Amino acid sequence: MIKARLFTPGPTDVPPEVLIEMAKPIFHHRTAQFQELFKQVNEGLKKLLFTTGDVLTLAGSGTAAMEAALVCACRRDKTTLVANGGKFGERWAKVCRTYGIDVEEMMIEWGTAISAAQVAEKLATGKYGAIVITHSETSTATAADLQAIAAEVRKTDALLIVDAITSAGALPLKMDDWGVDIVGIGSQKALMLPPGLALVAVSDKAWKVIDTIKPPAFYLNLKAYRKSLADNDVPYTPAITLIRGMKVALDMMHAVGMEKVWSRTACLAKATREAMAALGLKTVSRQPSDSVTGIYYPEGVSDKDFRKTIRSRYGCNVAGGQGDWEGKIFRVSHMGWIDPLDTIGMIAAIEFTLDALGAKIEIGTGVAKAAKVLKEWK
Amino acid sequence: MIKARLFTPGPTDVPPEVLIEMAKPIFHHRTAQFQELFKQVNEGLKKLLFTTGDVLTLAGSGTAAMEAALVCACRRDKTTLVANGGKFGERWAKVCRTYGIDVEEMMIEWGTAISAAQVAEKLATGKYGAIVITHSETSTATAADLQAIAAEVRKTDALLIVDAITSAGALPLKMDDWGVDIVGIGSQKALMLPPGLALVAVSDKAWKVIDTIKPPAFYLNLKAYRKSLADNDVPYTPAITLIRGMKVALDMMHAVGMEKVWSRTACLAKATREAMAALGLKTVSRQPSDSVTGIYYPEGVSDKDFRKTIRSRYGCNVAGGQGDWEGKIFRVSHMGWIDPLDTIGMIAAIEFTLDALGAKIEIGTGVAKAAKVLKEWK
Repeated sequence: MIKARLFTPGPTDVPPEVLIEMAKPIFHHRTAQFQELFKQVNEGLKKLLFTTGDVLTLAGSGTAAMEAALVCACRRDKTTLVANGGKFGERWAKVCRTYGIDVEEMMIEWGTAISAAQVAEKLATGKYGAIVITHSETSTATAADLQAIAAEVRKTDALLIVDAITSAGALPLKMDDWGVDIVGIGSQKALMLPPGLALVAVSDKAWKVIDTIKPPAFYLNLKAYRKSLADNDVPYTPAITLIRGMKVALDMMHAVGMEKVWSRTACLAKATREAMAALGLKTVSRQPSDSVTGIYYPEGVSDKDFRKTIRSRYGCNVAGGQGDWEGKIFRVSHMGWIDPLDTIGMIAAIEFTLDALGAKIEIGTGVAKAAKVLKEWK
Repeated sequence: MIKARLFTPGPTDVPPEVLIEMAKPIFHHRTAQFQELFKQVNEGLKKLLFTTGDVLTLAGSGTAAMEAALVCACRRDKTTLVANGGKFGERWAKVCRTYGIDVEEMMIEWGTAISAAQVAEKLATGKYGAIVITHSETSTATAADLQAIAAEVRKTDALLIVDAITSAGALPLKMDDWGVDIVGIGSQKALMLPPGLALVAVSDKAWKVIDTIKPPAFYLNLKAYRKSLADNDVPYTPAITLIRGMKVALDMMHAVGMEKVWSRTACLAKATREAMAALGLKTVSRQPSDSVTGIYYPEGVSDKDFRKTIRSRYGCNVAGGQGDWEGKIFRVSHMGWIDPLDTIGMIAAIEFTLDALGAKIEIGTGVAKAAKVLKEWK
């Protein structure tokens, strides 16, 4: 009788409305029924990203989305600049190297993000065909100022390729207004879906570059998806149940309105950060992302004990640290199907667990602080 | 994107394991498959109530369970004493009168329960064939000392008929040890099931009385259910999906252990009462039930606004008052599929809603107090 709750920064909990839609009998995808569904989904995805451009849906993970973007849109006659401020930035550089793309990694101190000024300075060299940015670096719980960066990139011929895996649907993101060229997303984060869908949004500026490249990839060749999309179709067998679920999830988000979804997420994140501060705990990021919060363990509390105890006693799944931060931090999500009551419950579970493991904290301090902040959630 | 939560004292939320079991394809009930299932369910029900006697399962509500008990077990040559300390006690007297049973209502001040001494005094007259007690009077959030009352009744020939609708599975209840003769239960409370099942547990002493009575009822004649039960069967079409769900729910409870389920429920109730006191709110009962807590509204807060706001903003369903307490109180449940994180979230929602409606409360005081108590939940 332990109620399981996902506070991991993906996968996140899925609303019952979505689960029920996905549990319905399967239908075939080479039908008008699928095309009508997919048409509605595609409209919802454009609204999600504030774009009139194409949003492509692949069966795959967020990594597949980013790999498709990189293999298709990184010019082979130019250098690709990858901002590496965490495990995901590091991965996008690895993907580039896999395909022999000339990549330059810019190392960013963990807990901070590349700045617009740094991007502008690099672009001034004229060397780069694409700038790859992780909007919300999940491993360090850190957000980049994407709008300011996009304002620099759009002045040039370079493409801005963005890992929006833990940002789309959680942090403000307006592709067309800001001038973001490519965005890669996974379904299991703010979109309130199980894992299994990779989304790639592509601007007209990006298509022009992509059309000059012959990618050494078949399944991840975005051009095949663009061709089918004209008929609200897909080139290869789609993950039908997940796409049905996505229709429901997008409808739920749009019924609230994206700006409100973002501000709600920000409120949950703020409450968590302030609650941790009230408990005397230190958060890991100097530019915190509102989709995920990373918290240093107090002295004497082991990562293994903490995550095991909070899960077995309170059903709360939280994530540990990665790379250099493994064993030193834990991370909790504010994305998707999470509300103030969940968040305050999660903070209570953090208090109970730290107390049980001997940390010196005053039980009730965190939840009281969080309640004061969450009162503003609308 | 409002997450719906039932804190009403029935129906209560149903665990996903139970929902999934009930969603499986239907099978026929006149089969060995059903008998095997029902055999296991019946063992689980005996364990739930600490009895070796029969526990009968009817398709019906808790009211049907109590009506079956009363029509079958109230001797027509004796008086039935009904303790009326709330809307449910009142109902059992009405049921008796419907069947022309000679009933004496003992009026009990709301927020208190009939005592063992009062029962003993009444029994001394030799006038009564049955004493009808509401173990947990949901309308007044009040519990009777059933063990002490049973100790008095078992000394006599009278039967102790108990409305355990919001007590079985929530409050300590040991039928055989204590000497309780008949217990009526509804599925939608501590049993973590949807409404639709009525359970009636019957002691040997009660069967001896029932065998002397020819009840003016067909569907609610317990003797038909007893006859089928010998073959792990039912006389009329059973609510198959609910019985399948009950198997899962009982297994979940027994995996934890009933004593622990009771003590957990008590801890949630204690945390809620202490949180309300910390907020300066008054609870309604002088002998509070641990399955449900009743709270007076602070001055200036209307029942309609409160319940509408807490539901629309935070998805929390709570109950209002009944009878004389309508409009004056609200009630929240601690039964079944509810844990500390839910409870602390519910208390936060009460704080937010009262604050939004202009009550003078210090946000955070209730949740902090609850966290201190809930730390003890094991």
